[in-house]
Amino acid sequence: MTARPFPTRSEDFNEWYNQLVLKAELADYAPVRGCMVVRPYGWALWENIQQALDRRFKATGHVNAGFPMFIPASFLEREKEHVAGFKPELAVVTIAGGEELAEPLVVRPTSETLIGHMYAKWIQSYQDLPLLINLWNSVVRWEKRTKLFLRTTEFFWQEGHTAHATAEEAEAETLRMLDVYTDFAVNEAALPVIPGEKSQSEKFAGARRSYAIEAMMGDGRALQSATSHYFGQNFAEAFDIKYLDDHNALQYCWTTSWGLSTRFIGAIVMAHGDDQGLILPPRLAPYQVVVVPIYRSDDERRLVLEEADKLTSELVDYRVWVDRREGHSPGYKFNDWEMRGVPLRIELGPRDIAASQVILARRDMPGAAGKQAVPRTGVAAAVGELLREVQAAMYDRALRFREENTREASSYAELKEAVETGFASVWWCEEADCEQEIKDSTGATSRCLPIEQPEGGGVCFRDGRPAARKAIFARAY
Amino acid sequence: MTARPFPTRSEDFNEWYNQLVLKAELADYAPVRGCMVVRPYGWALWENIQQALDRRFKATGHVNAGFPMFIPASFLEREKEHVAGFKPELAVVTIAGGEELAEPLVVRPTSETLIGHMYAKWIQSYQDLPLLINLWNSVVRWEKRTKLFLRTTEFFWQEGHTAHATAEEAEAETLRMLDVYTDFAVNEAALPVIPGEKSQSEKFAGARRSYAIEAMMGDGRALQSATSHYFGQNFAEAFDIKYLDDHNALQYCWTTSWGLSTRFIGAIVMAHGDDQGLILPPRLAPYQVVVVPIYRSDDERRLVLEEADKLTSELVDYRVWVDRREGHSPGYKFNDWEMRGVPLRIELGPRDIAASQVILARRDMPGAAGKQAVPRTGVAAAVGELLREVQAAMYDRALRFREENTREASSYAELKEAVETGFASVWWCEEADCEQEIKDSTGATSRCLPIEQPEGGGVCFRDGRPAARKAIFARAY
Repeated sequence: MTARPFPTRSEDFNEWYNQLVLKAELADYAPVRGCMVVRPYGWALWENIQQALDRRFKATGHVNAGFPMFIPASFLEREKEHVAGFKPELAVVTIAGGEELAEPLVVRPTSETLIGHMYAKWIQSYQDLPLLINLWNSVVRWEKRTKLFLRTTEFFWQEGHTAHATAEEAEAETLRMLDVYTDFAVNEAALPVIPGEKSQSEKFAGARRSYAIEAMMGDGRALQSATSHYFGQNFAEAFDIKYLDDHNALQYCWTTSWGLSTRFIGAIVMAHGDDQGLILPPRLAPYQVVVVPIYRSDDERRLVLEEADKLTSELVDYRVWVDRREGHSPGYKFNDWEMRGVPLRIELGPRDIAASQVILARRDMPGAAGKQAVPRTGVAAAVGELLREVQAAMYDRALRFREENTREASSYAELKEAVETGFASVWWCEEADCEQEIKDSTGATSRCLPIEQPEGGGVCFRDGRPAARKAIFARAY
Repeated sequence: MTARPFPTRSEDFNEWYNQLVLKAELADYAPVRGCMVVRPYGWALWENIQQALDRRFKATGHVNAGFPMFIPASFLEREKEHVAGFKPELAVVTIAGGEELAEPLVVRPTSETLIGHMYAKWIQSYQDLPLLINLWNSVVRWEKRTKLFLRTTEFFWQEGHTAHATAEEAEAETLRMLDVYTDFAVNEAALPVIPGEKSQSEKFAGARRSYAIEAMMGDGRALQSATSHYFGQNFAEAFDIKYLDDHNALQYCWTTSWGLSTRFIGAIVMAHGDDQGLILPPRLAPYQVVVVPIYRSDDERRLVLEEADKLTSELVDYRVWVDRREGHSPGYKFNDWEMRGVPLRIELGPRDIAASQVILARRDMPGAAGKQAVPRTGVAAAVGELLREVQAAMYDRALRFREENTREASSYAELKEAVETGFASVWWCEEADCEQEIKDSTGATSRCLPIEQPEGGGVCFRDGRPAARKAIFARAY
């Protein structure tokens, strides 16, 4: 065995992640501090995420559009919480076309303000509502401490922005999109998530209420994986988004926004990966199956590659890659694709061809347990079946891990212990001063107030104040 | 008849275009000067363009990636023609995270320099070649005079960047992508284009040779619709992109780039549109078929909409939209969808249902000639057939228009006359001083030296110098 190219997760989870992302060629550091290049393998994963989400957005009545990246600096000032939240992180263009600009332009940190400006122009009457637009783009937030995918100064994402005639419709939209994200995470990424409301101190700058899906990573920390915000009439008032209702009276709209970013790739890496590398969920994996040909002579090579082509042509329903690289042993290729997380490996050599079989190996079960010989005629069916099994097993494993590392805490001492290794579930007063104290002394924050709540109420685990809901606390990325 | 919402093409082609783009809701002006918002209808068209191209890119071995928008200002300086070409148009970030940046960042006007930096890092040996990466993103060029889609300070596009071991391979790639664009324009956009090489004064800043596809717009002007550049070793030398060849010697790579932008939407509008509005090619149209229900009473409405739903479910292979808007007459809807360029309209009323038929109307043949009653049972087949016919007829019409407005010119006088209304095809010396003189006195430039050339050679139509190739001259967007 050669030395592992990165530490194990228990040796150094942080370095395991950083080096794995580079080694697996998901992303690389760009020359500008804090920016990343998403490499083709990472981008193919992102494209699969995009397609799975875009399908869901369109099925729920949304359409895409393209908005510019520049926003007049004055726009941000119009909603006071919004500007307070984003101003410290802005990148500002002051020179363009060789001249100093009269008004500086900010590169969008998010597009609520520009959307507000255009919606005010486009929306006249109730017949124009709801307006349900999504953007696939990138945004810039000048972060001090960066980490590939999780926190970069520019990141790729989608941002949905909707306007409605009533508060009820806007609230329903906010929760509908939270559901869409939950469904995507569970059924596409095999990621168990907890959908819930954010506390007042954790909500989006300018939102009345923010919701998120929270996932547990392999080190027990939480990662906010997507968010959905209800703005009430905050942005409608700031940008004068009004409509004539069916009694011909002018009303402010009710708006929402929601987003999921390339950060989600970080969640997939950290929730599913093991000490050998990535484990990618079959539904999103760039390659679902890799075929590693095994041969010694040129004759064997010809024979095996011909058979690999035949096999590939039977697997058109799947994303299959035949690793034809010269100068690398099959063992090297096994390790390489294991590191890159391909869900299924097909090993194919002259002896397999003679025996009319192939060897199928599951990425999520390394070693002999995940390996089986499958008759040549049954490969397509077996591949379909195994990919479904891998997808389900990945979800089950991640859910079990989260359950094993989540504790019901009824005292501050119990919470402190729980957040050392995972999530704490507590009755909580939801007060900002309480959250600040917890953060200062434990490093943990309230991740969300889950949508699913037990009956009744309780008292705050820390200060004994009345608690209407339970909350999840954890250290977070 | 209500007044037309925009002038006819012969009254004012420029205003016809500007107002049509707004009225059809393809795009709108953003608050920042020269920037545009691509509205959902325009973006759906762009998504169809993206898919048709992306399929072709992947089929020719390319992969996508995501690169950051910021480039250190010093990078641009490394290739001297490149910086000379782009420096006057740059948008520059000087402040980020509340602090003045030590080195200003430019927002990419194109990504050759950043690609060069990363390729130098990623490419080690001949086994890493060819490297064939495409990016879907937006770029910024601070233009003084802007026009929606045709020239905006930020525009959406794709930029392909490839690195090769030999000059021959890089040249072949450059021409392969020119072919891909030609195939796309002809077969997806129904746009006849002339693929050819750009003159020295019209080539890309830093390229050894540039190629383009040129199309004729409805006013006889040319529009460069996509470009493909061969860089030789210019960028490899500037960014130190080297590989070890199979004799273990270090060599510079040979690189290319190629791009097509939202400008192409402008080409579709101006090449196909008529005085009623857009005419969109069926293969790219957001809606291929619109169903306009005709009713007077609530009972009729129920009956007709139910039948429209049935019809839609039979047309799942097509992009169909049922116009259920209340408060608008069928006549209003006919005009509206005509203006928005939907290739086929289905009119459906109680009398049609009683007669087991629908009325199908072709957008490219307004009036009675394009209208026919089709038996209800044959609608799906008729729709498929008619969409193919519309697609073919649009191409034929555009080609005929171009041929009618292209003249073989053998004297300067003939060229001057020809470029008043269209293209001039001339034997040309290809000298920069000659091109400058022609531009100064006629406003026309050499659009391209077509790939397809007659046998032999000639003498320059203007100065009598030897001419190896014929060129197309025209006034251009």
